[in-house]
Amino acid sequence: MPEVVSFGEVMMRLSPPGRKKILQTDQLDILYSGAEANVSCALAYWGKSAAHVTRFPDNALGHAALASLRKMNVDVSFIQMSEGRLGLYFVEQGALNRATAITYDRLPSAFSTIDKLAFNWDQILEGAKWFHWTGITPALSQGAADSLMEALKVAKIKGVKVSADINYRSGLWQYGKTPGEVLEPLVGMSQVVVAAESDTESIFGIKGNGKDYAAVSEAMKKHFPGMECMLASQRASISASHNTLSGVYWNGAEVFETRTFDINNIVDRIGSGDAFISGFIFGSLSGCSDQEKIDFAASSAVLKHAVEGDYNLVSVDEVWGLIEGNTGGRVKR
Amino acid sequence: MPEVVSFGEVMMRLSPPGRKKILQTDQLDILYSGAEANVSCALAYWGKSAAHVTRFPDNALGHAALASLRKMNVDVSFIQMSEGRLGLYFVEQGALNRATAITYDRLPSAFSTIDKLAFNWDQILEGAKWFHWTGITPALSQGAADSLMEALKVAKIKGVKVSADINYRSGLWQYGKTPGEVLEPLVGMSQVVVAAESDTESIFGIKGNGKDYAAVSEAMKKHFPGMECMLASQRASISASHNTLSGVYWNGAEVFETRTFDINNIVDRIGSGDAFISGFIFGSLSGCSDQEKIDFAASSAVLKHAVEGDYNLVSVDEVWGLIEGNTGGRVKR
Amino acid sequence: MPEVVSFGEVMMRLSPPGRKKILQTDQLDILYSGAEANVSCALAYWGKSAAHVTRFPDNALGHAALASLRKMNVDVSFIQMSEGRLGLYFVEQGALNRATAITYDRLPSAFSTIDKLAFNWDQILEGAKWFHWTGITPALSQGAADSLMEALKVAKIKGVKVSADINYRSGLWQYGKTPGEVLEPLVGMSQVVVAAESDTESIFGIKGNGKDYAAVSEAMKKHFPGMECMLASQRASISASHNTLSGVYWNGAEVFETRTFDINNIVDRIGSGDAFISGFIFGSLSGCSDQEKIDFAASSAVLKHAVEGDYNLVSVDEVWGLIEGNTGGRVKR
Amino acid sequence: MPEVVSFGEVMMRLSPPGRKKILQTDQLDILYSGAEANVSCALAYWGKSAAHVTRFPDNALGHAALASLRKMNVDVSFIQMSEGRLGLYFVEQGALNRATAITYDRLPSAFSTIDKLAFNWDQILEGAKWFHWTGITPALSQGAADSLMEALKVAKIKGVKVSADINYRSGLWQYGKTPGEVLEPLVGMSQVVVAAESDTESIFGIKGNGKDYAAVSEAMKKHFPGMECMLASQRASISASHNTLSGVYWNGAEVFETRTFDINNIVDRIGSGDAFISGFIFGSLSGCSDQEKIDFAASSAVLKHAVEGDYNLVSVDEVWGLIEGNTGGRVKR
Amino acid sequence: MPEVVSFGEVMMRLSPPGRKKILQTDQLDILYSGAEANVSCALAYWGKSAAHVTRFPDNALGHAALASLRKMNVDVSFIQMSEGRLGLYFVEQGALNRATAITYDRLPSAFSTIDKLAFNWDQILEGAKWFHWTGITPALSQGAADSLMEALKVAKIKGVKVSADINYRSGLWQYGKTPGEVLEPLVGMSQVVVAAESDTESIFGIKGNGKDYAAVSEAMKKHFPGMECMLASQRASISASHNTLSGVYWNGAEVFETRTFDINNIVDRIGSGDAFISGFIFGSLSGCSDQEKIDFAASSAVLKHAVEGDYNLVSVDEVWGLIEGNTGGRVKR
Amino acid sequence: MPEVVSFGEVMMRLSPPGRKKILQTDQLDILYSGAEANVSCALAYWGKSAAHVTRFPDNALGHAALASLRKMNVDVSFIQMSEGRLGLYFVEQGALNRATAITYDRLPSAFSTIDKLAFNWDQILEGAKWFHWTGITPALSQGAADSLMEALKVAKIKGVKVSADINYRSGLWQYGKTPGEVLEPLVGMSQVVVAAESDTESIFGIKGNGKDYAAVSEAMKKHFPGMECMLASQRASISASHNTLSGVYWNGAEVFETRTFDINNIVDRIGSGDAFISGFIFGSLSGCSDQEKIDFAASSAVLKHAVEGDYNLVSVDEVWGLIEGNTGGRVKR
Repeated sequence: MPEVVSFGEVMMRLSPPGRKKILQTDQLDILYSGAEANVSCALAYWGKSAAHVTRFPDNALGHAALASLRKMNVDVSFIQMSEGRLGLYFVEQGALNRATAITYDRLPSAFSTIDKLAFNWDQILEGAKWFHWTGITPALSQGAADSLMEALKVAKIKGVKVSADINYRSGLWQYGKTPGEVLEPLVGMSQVVVAAESDTESIFGIKGNGKDYAAVSEAMKKHFPGMECMLASQRASISASHNTLSGVYWNGAEVFETRTFDINNIVDRIGSGDAFISGFIFGSLSGCSDQEKIDFAASSAVLKHAVEGDYNLVSVDEVWGLIEGNTGGRVKR
Repeated sequence: MPEVVSFGEVMMRLSPPGRKKILQTDQLDILYSGAEANVSCALAYWGKSAAHVTRFPDNALGHAALASLRKMNVDVSFIQMSEGRLGLYFVEQGALNRATAITYDRLPSAFSTIDKLAFNWDQILEGAKWFHWTGITPALSQGAADSLMEALKVAKIKGVKVSADINYRSGLWQYGKTPGEVLEPLVGMSQVVVAAESDTESIFGIKGNGKDYAAVSEAMKKHFPGMECMLASQRASISASHNTLSGVYWNGAEVFETRTFDINNIVDRIGSGDAFISGFIFGSLSGCSDQEKIDFAASSAVLKHAVEGDYNLVSVDEVWGLIEGNTGGRVKR
Repeated sequence: MPEVVSFGEVMMRLSPPGRKKILQTDQLDILYSGAEANVSCALAYWGKSAAHVTRFPDNALGHAALASLRKMNVDVSFIQMSEGRLGLYFVEQGALNRATAITYDRLPSAFSTIDKLAFNWDQILEGAKWFHWTGITPALSQGAADSLMEALKVAKIKGVKVSADINYRSGLWQYGKTPGEVLEPLVGMSQVVVAAESDTESIFGIKGNGKDYAAVSEAMKKHFPGMECMLASQRASISASHNTLSGVYWNGAEVFETRTFDINNIVDRIGSGDAFISGFIFGSLSGCSDQEKIDFAASSAVLKHAVEGDYNLVSVDEVWGLIEGNTGGRVKR
Repeated sequence: MPEVVSFGEVMMRLSPPGRKKILQTDQLDILYSGAEANVSCALAYWGKSAAHVTRFPDNALGHAALASLRKMNVDVSFIQMSEGRLGLYFVEQGALNRATAITYDRLPSAFSTIDKLAFNWDQILEGAKWFHWTGITPALSQGAADSLMEALKVAKIKGVKVSADINYRSGLWQYGKTPGEVLEPLVGMSQVVVAAESDTESIFGIKGNGKDYAAVSEAMKKHFPGMECMLASQRASISASHNTLSGVYWNGAEVFETRTFDINNIVDRIGSGDAFISGFIFGSLSGCSDQEKIDFAASSAVLKHAVEGDYNLVSVDEVWGLIEGNTGGRVKR
Repeated sequence: MPEVVSFGEVMMRLSPPGRKKILQTDQLDILYSGAEANVSCALAYWGKSAAHVTRFPDNALGHAALASLRKMNVDVSFIQMSEGRLGLYFVEQGALNRATAITYDRLPSAFSTIDKLAFNWDQILEGAKWFHWTGITPALSQGAADSLMEALKVAKIKGVKVSADINYRSGLWQYGKTPGEVLEPLVGMSQVVVAAESDTESIFGIKGNGKDYAAVSEAMKKHFPGMECMLASQRASISASHNTLSGVYWNGAEVFETRTFDINNIVDRIGSGDAFISGFIFGSLSGCSDQEKIDFAASSAVLKHAVEGDYNLVSVDEVWGLIEGNTGGRVKR
Repeated sequence: MPEVVSFGEVMMRLSPPGRKKILQTDQLDILYSGAEANVSCALAYWGKSAAHVTRFPDNALGHAALASLRKMNVDVSFIQMSEGRLGLYFVEQGALNRATAITYDRLPSAFSTIDKLAFNWDQILEGAKWFHWTGITPALSQGAADSLMEALKVAKIKGVKVSADINYRSGLWQYGKTPGEVLEPLVGMSQVVVAAESDTESIFGIKGNGKDYAAVSEAMKKHFPGMECMLASQRASISASHNTLSGVYWNGAEVFETRTFDINNIVDRIGSGDAFISGFIFGSLSGCSDQEKIDFAASSAVLKHAVEGDYNLVSVDEVWGLIEGNTGGRVKR
């Protein structure tokens, strides 16, 4: 019985070595990733028991993706193998003022063909403490949105806490519904919401005052009374190589903020948003204080920029270390 | 005005280094290939002017595929860039008694979305001498089959010779029609047909006597009176590393055969069928005798096994050399 | 509760790319392997539930080795993390008449520091059907031999079938005891023994007639009455690139042999002995006939030569296919 | 009929992976480049029709270099294949305070053996709008200088605009003439000149006031009345990893400057000067304003530092984006 | 007769490519290094004759390590080949706030098995001017400490100058003695000592005033009257990618300092301490002034951060260049 | 004082990975080699003291080539660093019936600029027992031929045995003299000659009877009375992957032959001729019998086909092992 359950598509990520473009390379590096699976991987790496729920094609690619999750110590018992293809995406890593560019090739993946009854949520969520989803899943297909709603209903009955990372991608949402109409009931059944004001405004038309995270959080709370708290990472992008990042968290009553971290000479920023909510869940399950939770979330996200791939392979000690000011300059022998 | 025009899908081919499986690798080698484009590439490499007609997605992958054809000196003037995705396939190279395994991920590609009127064949075939297609194209979609039929009609009007490589892949043909009903009229408009008796029987129910290539050729001629000649490569597979190959050709009257080549320690056999018909077209366009045509076809196919990738990067001199008994054992300085 | 349990050291295997020597390379390829873990990996790959028991150092290498087993779907619940180092070995792959050369750097590994009470065999073997060990484990240290004896005692009580692969390596056995004195009681508690006559003679002084596998098997049976059957792979080495292999199996009454397989152009022969016993265990657990068991064992061993690394990543279908004469020459699409 | 024609040597560029030195590596990465061909490649990448004129050896290296230009969509119709060798250069990429080091091995290349009548400029420049050369070409051999003069004469007759990038390399110029005497008449026939005051002074003895770009431009204009405008990129080098860059342009009447771009964490700075003039030519051919021309030139040069290799594989949109302040920090999905 | 002799263990250094972790990679890059051998390599690269004294295992790894020193022009005449294993260490390069992490696997190496009489120091030091050791050697084993003491006795007799780099590693020192008791007599026989106040305090309990390098130097001098001078590099670590560094040197009378160098975007910082003392020895042997000695030491250390691997492959000119303000931003053609 | 001295050009050898062609690759593997240096490397690897004499350019490539010889334990004391370039050659490895293809880019190398007095042979050959040259050296330039003649004169005076490998390459010999006129006096001063009848006939017009090695040897002896013995390797090339090889040796009186070795699945055949004469020199210096000398030569040559690169990295034991019938099929643990 895993403590945490995440749900969503896992893709093969293919990228040229170094800073090359696809036009320049005859070799691609393989990684596997998904916004939700990244969270299970991080939590499993930090010692929590975590399961990921998805569907893979029953071919060489699907089995390799499955093995990559198993390797990361994620519980794969509930993963299905079926007809279909594995979603792919191609990453050309940017540098300096050249932005990282992603070419998606994800539909129609085996995952997107799931329907309302694809998974036995009653069995999957038995004994779980936390369920995590992102806005990518209901964006993929009606069936994915339906299956997610089933999971949320079961979570409610079982008292499983639900976190939702809005993760708005306008390029998805191709099946005829608007993000707003689909996400409305799903966010309504989630207690922890990761969202910036730009997201809440564009999707739900919910605004704060444009400055104060408390304002937008309270507006969200009014709209989604089941929401208990809300958080976001705040990034400033000086270039593709140089960002800054801080975290902000409204605990239902007051706002907690982290210091602003300088991230210069980025290795790989993809997955840092997932590292952020991973850190928050870890803090929550570990009995941390509010300030510690958001510190752990932000520090986890910052360290992700130093790791190749989407899985956040930094230790709990490294995350606490950065919070305490250990900037990583000393060699660990 | 290219001398030869080929028509069909071009895919990105992804394979683990060496003899690894996808499960074992975090790196894939990229090549681009398509049964028909392989023919244009070979002919362009041998100094013929050759154009390939296809449709690519207008993204980083499509442009890289396009550049790969341009690099090989293929005329790409008629290639379209559109919405959609690039077809992919994954190759795990076999060895010894472990067979090479291919995982296709080709539909729905940008190419498969073409329709009857997608290409201006009148313009494309103006001045051409030869048009080449394979059974893969009409297997992909009704639109691809329709567009091909348009090409054949124009070829007939303009007197362009047409070669058809049956290349039967039972895994394709997913759009509701049988190979027989679709291929019947298309082969009927082709003068040069590449087919083994196993193909003619399973698709058209046309049998010879199971031994004699003249018998099946004559049976085909009876059914397809427009067909002028027929040829096939005959392969015996001792293992994934060791094959033998010979060529057979019925010129409408008599049969010509080549010697049997021993191919031990295979580098890459994919594309050797395309190298075979490439060699035949080259011989035909170069005024070769019947025996020379089939010798060039078989020798080209044999040498392909020594080349990495689908494009047959061996020179005209190397092909003639092998025919004349130069087995490649001397270093060329 | 895993069906099969294997027990032994797992090492990091480091080898230069291609056929290079360590002197020539600035890069090493990493694999993980162990004679016993290779068996669990093969069985897990073939759908059996299999656990491996070992001890790893609690450092970056140990965790990577652990993850490699998890990736292969081996049950790692009983693996311990401790002080110490990971055993290593370096492989320079041979070719032609240059032999493959291995440099071991395995002692003092974390595994070799185990003692009699290191593992709770009562818990580990609960519900298991098969326990597999090799002569490498008791060769490493007194503690490893003692722990193995504990396992065999528990296996006896629980009625778990035990297979022993003699796997005699004269370079090990550094802790002051002779192979004979240590292996005597251990083999005495095993029902399935993998051994060639050369092994039984040099270790136990037990000879047959030098020709007939029944003779040496019966002599062994006389000495080890608990032994139920005995088997061996028979290899002839034409060169480092070219071997032949057959299997022979005495089922307690009569001898079964396989055909002799030609293995030319070897990819990687390391682990083929482990693939042999893996195949036998698979056949035994799958209710195969005696002939099928030894055929599956030999065919599995043959196919291993076509796979990079020690884990035998060929499917059950591929193994049966080779038995039935499918030599791997056809591309699987 | 290409819109732009460039003329000069193309070399194979060989460099160790990462930041290694030749002494440390057993592998070299291959790229192809030439100061003038880089300009054609950039313009072709941006949708202009561009031809490059050069001579390659008729061997495996020359054909690979030729294919690299074809791949980049450069018109290679006028390229000659001949006896001789391909020029090479070896790059050890610097970092921090270790400078990038180049070892040239370019003479006697096939290109350097051209003579006055090597190319039929009348045919090549028919219909062209722009001809580009750099100071490297006349530095290589008397024949190269003579052939260039022939081109300039034809350009004058046909009214083709000529740009000259002084690109002074003191290590070249080995055939017995001074840069000044050779460049004098060539620059005299060029309308657009890329030069810093340091160049004009050391080659022609033409000084401004050491501060004001208008001053040196006017002095040049006095000396070279055919010159219509002059431009330069201004670089400050904090380290091998960190530069700043701005552009300055005298349009014959007044000076236009760009903002200063900070370039920290450089990927590859080679070819950024060629990216600068490429951008200016693009702006000129696209009807841009004076400020836009120099902005496009500088922004193109800045982005080049983020691209591996000499060809500036950034899109027109990326260049405009940087001008407008899009610093590349957002992932493009 | 080498001018400089260094003494200590040489290990194989294995690291994943780029910024990957061992868990993520199936490939390791090989380098060879040792704190003392790094010094000989640097001095040999700078044209001094330098010998390194160590013991290697007589296997493929030991011979490869030996060849790596020979390649670097180090005199290997006194190196012994013996039983045993080669020490290894694994480096996961950090970035940003993720620290570089080293996993050692060095004991029991062939080197650590040496004893008091292992080397004939009388022969080795004949004609030498300088002997260099570090605190790592006596930390490995009693035999290593004893052999070192023998060397120091001979050096005293022959008037060879001795430098000692304290290089305190608390993870070593496993053989039952404290660093203080072992190092006390060894440092007492050394004239040049590399140590920070933190080292002198934790090992010998010798403090200055925590600010002034003269103070701690004088306190050391009081304790170790044979010490002639003392020096240290002073590093501030902003992150794993960004450090600053300066050098400080007490010449027995007064303190000399260098400017503080900014090192942003570090390639590889391992070995920079060895590059520091290498520079000092070079300066001393080359008749430099006190300020020049410490400048050369610090500049050498700074440049090491731009080089892959532990050997400091920067030229004497590059080191002087940096001292004179050449920051490496200009390409060397 | 080295026992063996070899003399000739050393080049950088660049080749695409695997069986790729230059057109297909963006990466080249580096090796260093020269027909004569290969001999010194083999002898040094086998424990003989061996010096190589050559001239390198004083740049990054020359120093890397120098280091590669030092790494192999060759005495480099007499090597000169000068102006000029390093000779290069590019190898596309063949397979099956595709021949290995070499593109040379060697002239004008630093080595080819030597003149009669370039080397102080009196010093170099002091104490040497054997001097080795090949027909490549006098083919490069008049100066190289002159310098070689100086060496041979000194060898005569000092009683150093001289071996000459005719190694006829018609593509060289560009400086206006015929091979015959240049080689005549040089071979006349050599005691050991490696030559096939095809060589002696085409260069000197000396024929045997086309079958019997004694016949041509005796004819050569008549022409070159100073010649003491003559030997050749006899290769049959079934394909680029499959050769057979035997050795033949006329000791001045009678002919000794080896068995014919089958070499299937060749790794790299370049340098096998150099491995042949290396083996003969080793046998001669080690007091072997006539049969042993030619056996060692042939076995060395055969094993070279299993080694990547030109240096024959097989041990003396491996060579004897093959002679004794150890075909390399057993793993060495």
